[in-house]
Amino acid sequence: MDATIPGGSPAVPAAHHDAAPHDVAHPDPRAPGWAVGVDIGGTKVQAALLDPDGRVVGTRRRATRPGPDGLVAAVTTTVRELAAEHGVPVGALAGTGIGVPGVVDPVTGSVEHAVNVGVERPFALAAAVADALGAGARVRVENDLNVAVLGAAHTMASSFAHRDLAFLALGTGVAAGLLLDGTLRRGSHRAAGEVGHLTLVPDGLPCKCGQRGCVEQYASGSALDAAWPSRDGRPAPVAVFEAAAAGDPRAVAVRDRFVWAVAGAVRILVLTCDVDHVVVGGGVSGVGEPLLGAVRVELERETAASPFLASLRLADRVHLAPQDVPVGAVGAALVGRGEIV
Amino acid sequence: MDATIPGGSPAVPAAHHDAAPHDVAHPDPRAPGWAVGVDIGGTKVQAALLDPDGRVVGTRRRATRPGPDGLVAAVTTTVRELAAEHGVPVGALAGTGIGVPGVVDPVTGSVEHAVNVGVERPFALAAAVADALGAGARVRVENDLNVAVLGAAHTMASSFAHRDLAFLALGTGVAAGLLLDGTLRRGSHRAAGEVGHLTLVPDGLPCKCGQRGCVEQYASGSALDAAWPSRDGRPAPVAVFEAAAAGDPRAVAVRDRFVWAVAGAVRILVLTCDVDHVVVGGGVSGVGEPLLGAVRVELERETAASPFLASLRLADRVHLAPQDVPVGAVGAALVGRGEIV
Repeated sequence: MDATIPGGSPAVPAAHHDAAPHDVAHPDPRAPGWAVGVDIGGTKVQAALLDPDGRVVGTRRRATRPGPDGLVAAVTTTVRELAAEHGVPVGALAGTGIGVPGVVDPVTGSVEHAVNVGVERPFALAAAVADALGAGARVRVENDLNVAVLGAAHTMASSFAHRDLAFLALGTGVAAGLLLDGTLRRGSHRAAGEVGHLTLVPDGLPCKCGQRGCVEQYASGSALDAAWPSRDGRPAPVAVFEAAAAGDPRAVAVRDRFVWAVAGAVRILVLTCDVDHVVVGGGVSGVGEPLLGAVRVELERETAASPFLASLRLADRVHLAPQDVPVGAVGAALVGRGEIV
Repeated sequence: MDATIPGGSPAVPAAHHDAAPHDVAHPDPRAPGWAVGVDIGGTKVQAALLDPDGRVVGTRRRATRPGPDGLVAAVTTTVRELAAEHGVPVGALAGTGIGVPGVVDPVTGSVEHAVNVGVERPFALAAAVADALGAGARVRVENDLNVAVLGAAHTMASSFAHRDLAFLALGTGVAAGLLLDGTLRRGSHRAAGEVGHLTLVPDGLPCKCGQRGCVEQYASGSALDAAWPSRDGRPAPVAVFEAAAAGDPRAVAVRDRFVWAVAGAVRILVLTCDVDHVVVGGGVSGVGEPLLGAVRVELERETAASPFLASLRLADRVHLAPQDVPVGAVGAALVGRGEIV
């Protein structure tokens, strides 16, 4: 089966079925072209319109309405709005890509176990969106971390000599997307990058996965929320880093433990996969430079005692995800226009 | 530069230079053919002769004589002996591959930081062996864990639906070779698979790398040697497992901690890279089924509390490296005949 789900319009010539995105030698004649990417998260949906040169020419953001119908409506509305705003007919789009936090079959475009967005049982998201968009729309679906790493590689290309990186998402949970030597590493069972459930502290905090001491219990936004309940409505990560910078000893302890855990996740990714870069994203990355600086200091501290670690230049490999571009949506658009198979 | 280092004979036509192994469309007209692989370890050199169908038709084993001259002599002597024994002229070999425990540049055939075999500074091993063999010999060099994972994939192909595995070597140290979806993952700085230096026990045993509590301090043959000094000359791993099976409580404690650490390394490889298989090799794997069984029991025990871990079927992914075939030498032969670029 093809990664492309044709739209409901009977006007779509059969040839479009055959122009498989797998077939590198015969690329879709419409791609690369204009494309929309939609990144669906637990709380918000972010979208981007890419022009044929891969530049972001428009973005959109709305609240997530969980469940199959809500997702399809959010995606189709967003695609239509972005396309109309920039004078691109929906039928002229090279494709639409969708990033979803769940188990995705990029070949069939089906999604399951996407609990955070209200999809439990297998749902043919690509087909449903293509039907709703009509006009021969081509829709592809990919895991949210995979679109994030693709978007980060695209957006930060000028900083990276090689397309070899992990996107380490620090949000409700902790997990990574892997782009190894330019190729998405989804994993043999689509479980690559699950570093959030490796043990950081033996017999440590219980994790909802059933284990104890998981990385996620120390390096996630949820971990910070739990350790530093918000008092003024500001995000916990920002509040903790500010209070720590102001000298609050409790905040310093919370921040340092968090930073130590993030450094641990970076070390896992580099020593296992030897990715050239680790891009830190997710909600917590909104802290910005203070987070990056603290993680680098922690990595440098650890390498001081170890020539082996020092030789790996861990601190140099860590970067912050761009805060001004929705990298997940950009990556989804790249998937949508068939760059990634 | 080419991964192939031509031999010293002036009779080698220039075309052989150009038949780059990188050029998939124009494979070397002599490959696949007969090939010799030589796997150089800290104590022994193992070699295998592969026939054109990839079958092992002869093996050889000798003690390692450290240092550049010793290595070149061991490799060339072994190649000549194996070739003569099976009536294959050295000049008719498709190639010779060498696995070395150090930092290898597969493009130039140079080796460095191979402390265990007496090579510290960069040494052009492929060129030196090609010169010594003469007759247009083509020699390639690869890291020892990379040849091991290639050899394991080749030897165990009938058990594996996909060429997607890690070779977890438990010897003096602990490290893994990675073959992801059929492609060697050397890493952006040739440091992929260094799971032995991830932290298993915070503030645990000091490691020679400068860190504390590294996986290697608990899951290596050296760790077993230290915890169970040999009393009768038998390898520590075998002695520990036998004593534990006989009910010695100290041996049970040593074995169980070791098995727990090996299971930890398996978990790291699967949750990070999602390899379809983890093949346990290295000296400790000589323990055989009792080791495999114990690691599987430990992995099952851990998954009992975690539906997430259970869904990853960790125990099913673990295998023992074949004990009757020198997989490293087989992998080196595959590299030698240019299957891997």
